[in-house]
Amino acid sequence: MQIGMMGLGRMGANMVRRLMKDGHECVVYDINPAAVAALASEGATGANALEDFVAKLSKPACVWLMLPAAITGRIADQVAGLMQPGDIIIDGGNSHYQDAVDIADRLAPKGISFVDVGTSGGVWGLDRGYCLMIGGPVAAVRHLDPIFASLAPGAEDGTAPSAGTAASGYLHCGPSGAGHFVKMIHNGIEYGMMAAYAEGLNILKAANAGKRKREADAETSPLKNPEYYQFDIDLAAVTEVWRHGSVIGSWLLDLTAGVLKEDPALAKFGGRVSDSGEGRWTLKAAIDTGVPAPVLSSALFDRFSSQGESEFADKLLSAMRFAFGGHVEKKKD
Amino acid sequence: MQIGMMGLGRMGANMVRRLMKDGHECVVYDINPAAVAALASEGATGANALEDFVAKLSKPACVWLMLPAAITGRIADQVAGLMQPGDIIIDGGNSHYQDAVDIADRLAPKGISFVDVGTSGGVWGLDRGYCLMIGGPVAAVRHLDPIFASLAPGAEDGTAPSAGTAASGYLHCGPSGAGHFVKMIHNGIEYGMMAAYAEGLNILKAANAGKRKREADAETSPLKNPEYYQFDIDLAAVTEVWRHGSVIGSWLLDLTAGVLKEDPALAKFGGRVSDSGEGRWTLKAAIDTGVPAPVLSSALFDRFSSQGESEFADKLLSAMRFAFGGHVEKKKD
Amino acid sequence: MQIGMMGLGRMGANMVRRLMKDGHECVVYDINPAAVAALASEGATGANALEDFVAKLSKPACVWLMLPAAITGRIADQVAGLMQPGDIIIDGGNSHYQDAVDIADRLAPKGISFVDVGTSGGVWGLDRGYCLMIGGPVAAVRHLDPIFASLAPGAEDGTAPSAGTAASGYLHCGPSGAGHFVKMIHNGIEYGMMAAYAEGLNILKAANAGKRKREADAETSPLKNPEYYQFDIDLAAVTEVWRHGSVIGSWLLDLTAGVLKEDPALAKFGGRVSDSGEGRWTLKAAIDTGVPAPVLSSALFDRFSSQGESEFADKLLSAMRFAFGGHVEKKKD
Amino acid sequence: MQIGMMGLGRMGANMVRRLMKDGHECVVYDINPAAVAALASEGATGANALEDFVAKLSKPACVWLMLPAAITGRIADQVAGLMQPGDIIIDGGNSHYQDAVDIADRLAPKGISFVDVGTSGGVWGLDRGYCLMIGGPVAAVRHLDPIFASLAPGAEDGTAPSAGTAASGYLHCGPSGAGHFVKMIHNGIEYGMMAAYAEGLNILKAANAGKRKREADAETSPLKNPEYYQFDIDLAAVTEVWRHGSVIGSWLLDLTAGVLKEDPALAKFGGRVSDSGEGRWTLKAAIDTGVPAPVLSSALFDRFSSQGESEFADKLLSAMRFAFGGHVEKKKD
Repeated sequence: MQIGMMGLGRMGANMVRRLMKDGHECVVYDINPAAVAALASEGATGANALEDFVAKLSKPACVWLMLPAAITGRIADQVAGLMQPGDIIIDGGNSHYQDAVDIADRLAPKGISFVDVGTSGGVWGLDRGYCLMIGGPVAAVRHLDPIFASLAPGAEDGTAPSAGTAASGYLHCGPSGAGHFVKMIHNGIEYGMMAAYAEGLNILKAANAGKRKREADAETSPLKNPEYYQFDIDLAAVTEVWRHGSVIGSWLLDLTAGVLKEDPALAKFGGRVSDSGEGRWTLKAAIDTGVPAPVLSSALFDRFSSQGESEFADKLLSAMRFAFGGHVEKKKD
Repeated sequence: MQIGMMGLGRMGANMVRRLMKDGHECVVYDINPAAVAALASEGATGANALEDFVAKLSKPACVWLMLPAAITGRIADQVAGLMQPGDIIIDGGNSHYQDAVDIADRLAPKGISFVDVGTSGGVWGLDRGYCLMIGGPVAAVRHLDPIFASLAPGAEDGTAPSAGTAASGYLHCGPSGAGHFVKMIHNGIEYGMMAAYAEGLNILKAANAGKRKREADAETSPLKNPEYYQFDIDLAAVTEVWRHGSVIGSWLLDLTAGVLKEDPALAKFGGRVSDSGEGRWTLKAAIDTGVPAPVLSSALFDRFSSQGESEFADKLLSAMRFAFGGHVEKKKD
Repeated sequence: MQIGMMGLGRMGANMVRRLMKDGHECVVYDINPAAVAALASEGATGANALEDFVAKLSKPACVWLMLPAAITGRIADQVAGLMQPGDIIIDGGNSHYQDAVDIADRLAPKGISFVDVGTSGGVWGLDRGYCLMIGGPVAAVRHLDPIFASLAPGAEDGTAPSAGTAASGYLHCGPSGAGHFVKMIHNGIEYGMMAAYAEGLNILKAANAGKRKREADAETSPLKNPEYYQFDIDLAAVTEVWRHGSVIGSWLLDLTAGVLKEDPALAKFGGRVSDSGEGRWTLKAAIDTGVPAPVLSSALFDRFSSQGESEFADKLLSAMRFAFGGHVEKKKD
Repeated sequence: MQIGMMGLGRMGANMVRRLMKDGHECVVYDINPAAVAALASEGATGANALEDFVAKLSKPACVWLMLPAAITGRIADQVAGLMQPGDIIIDGGNSHYQDAVDIADRLAPKGISFVDVGTSGGVWGLDRGYCLMIGGPVAAVRHLDPIFASLAPGAEDGTAPSAGTAASGYLHCGPSGAGHFVKMIHNGIEYGMMAAYAEGLNILKAANAGKRKREADAETSPLKNPEYYQFDIDLAAVTEVWRHGSVIGSWLLDLTAGVLKEDPALAKFGGRVSDSGEGRWTLKAAIDTGVPAPVLSSALFDRFSSQGESEFADKLLSAMRFAFGGHVEKKKD
């Protein structure tokens, strides 16, 4: 079937490619003409303006947005202004699910359906397929089924047929907003898992701490038993062995083992970890619903910390220590 | 080759079965004679006392212990008392790696090698194979290679041969203690991953919080926008869909999806989560080495809390609130 | 000067008393006529309906609201409907500062000033005075200065005069919302401090853990050195001694020592700790601004946990442990 | 009475001064002769070697050690080697309470009493008095009562006499180790309180985040409502106002307000926060006893993080994000 894709970044462009491979007709648009041209050269129909883009879609028009969360709402309204009743807007980005609820409420009186699709799979989705978490009106979701089926990985052998589309990698989770809600939680969990691996490996890396010299002053905590911290662990080998039969095997571990094999010192990275919103929203949902989320919040706050946002708090701690105990800050080793 | 297995619980018995399937000769012993008899009926050589057990082993005797951490050290010393120089004791249980360092130091002067093997795989290891993290002297580890190779899953297609035994699911991590150290961190990560899933799913379950009535008093935090919490999410379907193409796919997720499919209310469980030591030791290693582990500690402390150990602290909080603000505790709904 | 007080609960009634003691004229109203009658008998002017209440105030009318957060906005609008330009509404409750921003924006076009006053001091404020954190237009805040000065504790000896009103216990923090913002953070810190004491005392209470018997099975973490946990600590005496010269002396500690002296087992409390909103909002502000708040969030989440909200997550953890390792939940001791 | 003080740093020297002010005779020793000379010039009896120091003490000799934790045990043994049965060694430093238990056990057979005294009060103790948490044999503790009474702040008005010495600021908490155990927990709580203030003030500082420009890309979480983050809060004034009548008043807050008044930007500090051991030991005690301590651990881990120890973990997170999503790290603003 035909689909219009707007927003041809990493994710959007690859989704177009996966859809075309399965025979779907893709009309594409982006504010960057080069991105449009690239996909046009691969068989997509390019558009040079928003009006042109919507005009090129047959009815009911289906527009899939892959945009930064900060602008999705505004663009959805612009697209809707060019649409007719019966048309469908799909948001596949990392938008806040509450925006999806609001947008759906705004568009419903105009007869335009809004479908929010949480999309996981990253740069690997082109080959592996994307895991799709879908929210929206039943009719619109059903209409888009061929698109979802092509984007998703598809069922693997051995999956019980009773599992429905979930076993093929896509799921209608509920009304508008439910898709982004489930994707939001997915990313919250992702933060927690990533931090679990990162913390564990960081301790493993420190398993030789007993070999380092340590000052014996009042500002340094003594290491009582250095003889227990004499291990030089090969992190690449350890993450590789964990991939085979251990309880913590996962796709993230597969990637981590690959990363460590190629660049054991992670020299390419500085340690400033971005967060794109979904971890924050997960925590807000936990707060609103009164559900404890200490692990997910710890993972999020470590990212804030990596962005330098603990600095003033830490200065305050040093200032207090100086104020009550005359403790002078130690310099970096 | 021949191996003696002592401790025929869930893990020990299945490891014997997997070894026998691969043609190894197993001598088995347990304080529970029924456990010995069961494996004897499957082809193992049973022993009826520790002396008998060690006597039945040809030289160099290799004794694999699968025992609770609290008694491993004592039993290792007893076994060593019956051994000759050149013999090998393997500890495959969840012992503290520092005990492994200590035991190895005690046994080395007697010419007995101590090999610590962190073993992951749970009840599934019989079929999937066990992931083995090994510490100890090179010669002993090399001698036991056929045993490790049989217990481990073995290489899957596509693994680069340069990955060594790690790609087959077993790894010599370093000197005595290194195996249990790596397994300890493995379990610490496991706690964090499990908690990440559990917290995320708990929030997902609360996505319909806006449907519940809420009191408007000074002791209840208001839910400002109940319209955003109207989702009834099917957790079994969601965990199933995440298994296909998402970033958070993992073996733990596979199991979780299975659990939720079979018993969505988890009616069989009360929520008292045990911890068997390795999560605690991971944190102590983080503390000793000065490495931050907020996620792993949050996961551990939630388990303590589930065991009722927050109770006095919580009473204190209510008492303080009453003392400064006259706040009276609310009853359980 | 004259002030109208609406909401005569614990806080509101005592504030009226403190104001009358300083010679201010108080008009009072509450939906509970008994509360009105009680204060009328102490010298306040009672009102029997909202209209009557506002009518009894001379111009500019100043109405102070002490209401649950969930209804403050609605009541503020009702009161404003009975007011004239130049009148002032003060919100002294634990409302969300964003509501204060919104209400102020709604009332400004009508010429009505909205002043948000975060009020700390609890049931002790009547005698000690209340710490007031104030947001709103300069003119209205200045007009209310005599009221603030009477409610606040007043300057103690030795305070540098340059500290302004802060040294007397009240502070104009900024435009509308700033007062509740600062109070919100105040409560967030309060959660953290309370939890710090509660956790520490909980560990202190467990200092005799080595005297308890412990099972030696695979589901119980062993206590390696019970000889180090043989202390029976008198918590009431310890909190008392900390009050004198230690770094952790505080008013909360004073109260805690009093509580433990009177009821060392805290038998009156069940451990279900309420949270009334400001801790949640503090965390949301941390999330919005990207500032790490691991301590404040841990304190909040422990309260959620005490309310039973970890239950499903904990069942999931037990279910996973059973699924991968066949671990069966232990019963409560 | 007479007392020998060894270790004349910040704490030890001031304690000598406070004791001399109350008429006690002090014999002093330090490896730094200048420190000895300084106190000798104020009236203390100086010693130039350990033997000389102990020889100058009348019987029973009482030696108070104020040394870094890492060397206290070794020095205690050296001092004991020069002592007679009936003599007393006091450790007033921040040693691990388990060391105190061990040392006491080693010295008991020689008839030498070991008294561990947790000492809080910092550089202010000289004037305010020190809060003393004492462990050890009853007879020795009783013998030292005049020393403790002089070092402690002494009772303030209004303290119920039934509170015993606790109301004067010193307390015999239990057998050897109990004093350091209680001090350890004291410091654990201190970490938590300090972090509560620091986190809260850090959020308060960010209350103007809505005024900053924000990029709208997929790597930046959008700030949905910048209009709610427009406050420029005066942290010095806020901490001052909180000192008067609020629930979070404390001595630490008094110091913090002073610090912020003098240097609002904390320009003198870099934010590298030391930890000297007691926070770590508190957590280990929590782990050993199975008591949840999420707040105290978060406070400790933030310090580790401020020391740069999150770096490898954060690089791993960035590496994972690149691996699954092609996300490139953002540079520091």
